[in-house]
Amino acid sequence: MTSVDLNADMGEGFGPWKMGDDDALLDVITSANIACGFHAGDPDVMAATMARAVRNDVGIGAHPGFPDLQGFGRRKMTLGHDEVAHLVQYQLGAAQAMARAAGGHVRHLKLHGALSNMAMVDGEMARRAYDAALQVDPDIILMVLAATPMQDAAEALGANMACEIFADRGYNDDGTLIARGQPGAMVTDADEAAERISQMVRQGAIIAASGKELPARIDTICLHGDEPSAVAAAKTLRARLESDGITIAKF
Amino acid sequence: MTSVDLNADMGEGFGPWKMGDDDALLDVITSANIACGFHAGDPDVMAATMARAVRNDVGIGAHPGFPDLQGFGRRKMTLGHDEVAHLVQYQLGAAQAMARAAGGHVRHLKLHGALSNMAMVDGEMARRAYDAALQVDPDIILMVLAATPMQDAAEALGANMACEIFADRGYNDDGTLIARGQPGAMVTDADEAAERISQMVRQGAIIAASGKELPARIDTICLHGDEPSAVAAAKTLRARLESDGITIAKF
Amino acid sequence: MTSVDLNADMGEGFGPWKMGDDDALLDVITSANIACGFHAGDPDVMAATMARAVRNDVGIGAHPGFPDLQGFGRRKMTLGHDEVAHLVQYQLGAAQAMARAAGGHVRHLKLHGALSNMAMVDGEMARRAYDAALQVDPDIILMVLAATPMQDAAEALGANMACEIFADRGYNDDGTLIARGQPGAMVTDADEAAERISQMVRQGAIIAASGKELPARIDTICLHGDEPSAVAAAKTLRARLESDGITIAKF
Amino acid sequence: MTSVDLNADMGEGFGPWKMGDDDALLDVITSANIACGFHAGDPDVMAATMARAVRNDVGIGAHPGFPDLQGFGRRKMTLGHDEVAHLVQYQLGAAQAMARAAGGHVRHLKLHGALSNMAMVDGEMARRAYDAALQVDPDIILMVLAATPMQDAAEALGANMACEIFADRGYNDDGTLIARGQPGAMVTDADEAAERISQMVRQGAIIAASGKELPARIDTICLHGDEPSAVAAAKTLRARLESDGITIAKF
Repeated sequence: MTSVDLNADMGEGFGPWKMGDDDALLDVITSANIACGFHAGDPDVMAATMARAVRNDVGIGAHPGFPDLQGFGRRKMTLGHDEVAHLVQYQLGAAQAMARAAGGHVRHLKLHGALSNMAMVDGEMARRAYDAALQVDPDIILMVLAATPMQDAAEALGANMACEIFADRGYNDDGTLIARGQPGAMVTDADEAAERISQMVRQGAIIAASGKELPARIDTICLHGDEPSAVAAAKTLRARLESDGITIAKF
Repeated sequence: MTSVDLNADMGEGFGPWKMGDDDALLDVITSANIACGFHAGDPDVMAATMARAVRNDVGIGAHPGFPDLQGFGRRKMTLGHDEVAHLVQYQLGAAQAMARAAGGHVRHLKLHGALSNMAMVDGEMARRAYDAALQVDPDIILMVLAATPMQDAAEALGANMACEIFADRGYNDDGTLIARGQPGAMVTDADEAAERISQMVRQGAIIAASGKELPARIDTICLHGDEPSAVAAAKTLRARLESDGITIAKF
Repeated sequence: MTSVDLNADMGEGFGPWKMGDDDALLDVITSANIACGFHAGDPDVMAATMARAVRNDVGIGAHPGFPDLQGFGRRKMTLGHDEVAHLVQYQLGAAQAMARAAGGHVRHLKLHGALSNMAMVDGEMARRAYDAALQVDPDIILMVLAATPMQDAAEALGANMACEIFADRGYNDDGTLIARGQPGAMVTDADEAAERISQMVRQGAIIAASGKELPARIDTICLHGDEPSAVAAAKTLRARLESDGITIAKF
Repeated sequence: MTSVDLNADMGEGFGPWKMGDDDALLDVITSANIACGFHAGDPDVMAATMARAVRNDVGIGAHPGFPDLQGFGRRKMTLGHDEVAHLVQYQLGAAQAMARAAGGHVRHLKLHGALSNMAMVDGEMARRAYDAALQVDPDIILMVLAATPMQDAAEALGANMACEIFADRGYNDDGTLIARGQPGAMVTDADEAAERISQMVRQGAIIAASGKELPARIDTICLHGDEPSAVAAAKTLRARLESDGITIAKF
């Protein structure tokens, strides 16, 4: 029986500021990527988010990013590989402690924002970031973008791995994302997105905008929840996957 | 045979800035309190410091402080007890990960600066900070100021504990420190300090400036290393303790 | 003819995070207190907020706070008076530059959060903070809480001054605010608040919950806009003041 | 009579951390580039540095950098041009206020670290940064690297300008710096550097390592002071320039 995980970013508030509708998302997802304080998520936000994830039996992931609160970790920073390694370890450790105090534990790690965007095309950077995480927890599951240097890096390290596709993004024939701003970059119709993703999961392939199929391991689907429409789309997707006989479960 | 630990703060640089002579201290101390990023010590500094501590077989401690880099964690901040709990957990977790990546592990926890000064006189704050740390690691050794509400808090929690006195501070008859600025607050003569501390360790008592003895559990002595004279004083103390037949070893 | 200013905090977002409904408030207020980056408001948020204030011909104020983004400047920090002076100057200067680049200029200064709460009861701290601002701009208008040590400090410095009362808070007989959590601390009924404030402005007196009148200079009324109901209350107040023949204008 | 300015970075401490020997440099230089809080230099450090510059009658410059304290502003960040404009304005304004409070004023602006390195090769970024500064102060003197897109940008804006060469770096034939790590990148011999710089100033040309001369406007020479040997080299340079009949004075 086919099974797939649904993941989303959570705990992206900071101090007095809120972001996203974590409660609504928790009814839909099976894994949460929790911000670790560098781009969002202070210790209080993390504690509350960890508790919520534990209560909902959602898989907990550390979601480290660049030390750039103002830029929400979305601005590229040219760091050395050692610096990347250390900031991944630091944030992972912080997340582990907050999870433990909430009665849970960190199962997976997913890179955030510009850190992810850079590692997605720089296999050596991905390898160093992942290796750093494995030094802290050799059993951690690395969430990688399917069919990218990230997946290669995780495989080369012999690590536990969960391969991810995006629910709302279009793909080029080579499996890369259609760049934002290009036609087809975003799949905005919820039904169309659900149809397409269900097909990908059942075929075990990334299906490009052109229709071309690229066989790929698909363990989890990335959802967004920053807008009400996104939460609705997430629910549509989950319902469609279930009606197509796909089990929704943690990887 | 009497044995005592010598501890000092380490890893207090940040980015391009250095502080203290960690290498010189590592020849003298048996336990290091390592800054965790909030008042000093970024992930790169922590990684280097953890590696150095492992190499020298020095006991590793997490040394969490207030989120106040400019004030070096020395300015009082009025935080709620939950906020204190969470920042202790966050920093402890970060330190655990950095230690693990360096092949070591965090054995103890010591509060830094204003966080320590506030907890030293506010037993409930101490209890919440320590309880938070124990939620992350129930076996962690809490380094407390001997004969203060900190010690009471750690005892009430049934925690592992190491009781600390200061090498270079004078004590009042009730076991509190003579306030800075008052006569006798600092013991600046290295030989006098060494003599006095050796006596305290051998008697198992805090000896006030007046000569009054206050029986106390003494597991570790806090040294400073921010100035060349402090490192020299630390060496003088260690030599004196050893010549008085006291073993210097991790608690 | 009686005239009064209406002020509110603005520009309290940071990076990706929003706060308050600045656009709605701008239709109501005549002076804006703009966050300066330490407790909220990064340079991009400030630039946008300054431009909006200039466009709406609203008086621009610098609103410096403690360097505590997570705590939104609401947590007390024990700083030396020199440190307070310098952080006021730094933030004031930053606001001046952002205002100038937007075609405006900073007319007034109002302390934020815990910095204000501390200065409100510590006349010397108020004096140092205000004196620091005057060193940067001798003509700046200091917005002070009416009938507090803040007002005394501004008067002693011979500074331009605007005395402020709160639209939604109850007053004790001595002119201090009824502490939050006490009965009468918040005036939640918009019509009641408007009635009460209009009376205060017309009488030139703070009117305590008991009905007691305390003659006071009242130049401006502090509104809040963090919730939709607050914006509605602000509009109610403005309408009431105008229908009572009071001109709403910058101090 | 030929005249040249000598500039150096100053005020690069933060909180408890020191950097460089500002006092020694102040005997040598005529213009100081003062860090503005984002990569170094908190409000207290700035206040002390401004006071020192005023006392020594040294020209005061704002030295804005990326918001990256840990990386000391030396790590590239991919920011939008608006973001660059706003962070320059914010830091310039802060510096102006601190200078004014110290009885001085900001005469010039020099970009720091990675911000400078990026603007040096990206004329449009330089133009936006400089234009932003001119919106705050139309008379400010822009310190630019001679014979780079920075100089072109400042000229195109019709701005006051001071063209700079480095005392201790080797130049390629096209006027760019020999990349660090390449032979000739650093001119480590103080006498050789002094000889070479004196020649450049007198000829009004950048002299490449090959001996090739590139006519260039030279208003100021950048010195470093982070190490004792650097201060000694700075003194050697100043003495040589003076003995060669060149006046050392603010641009």
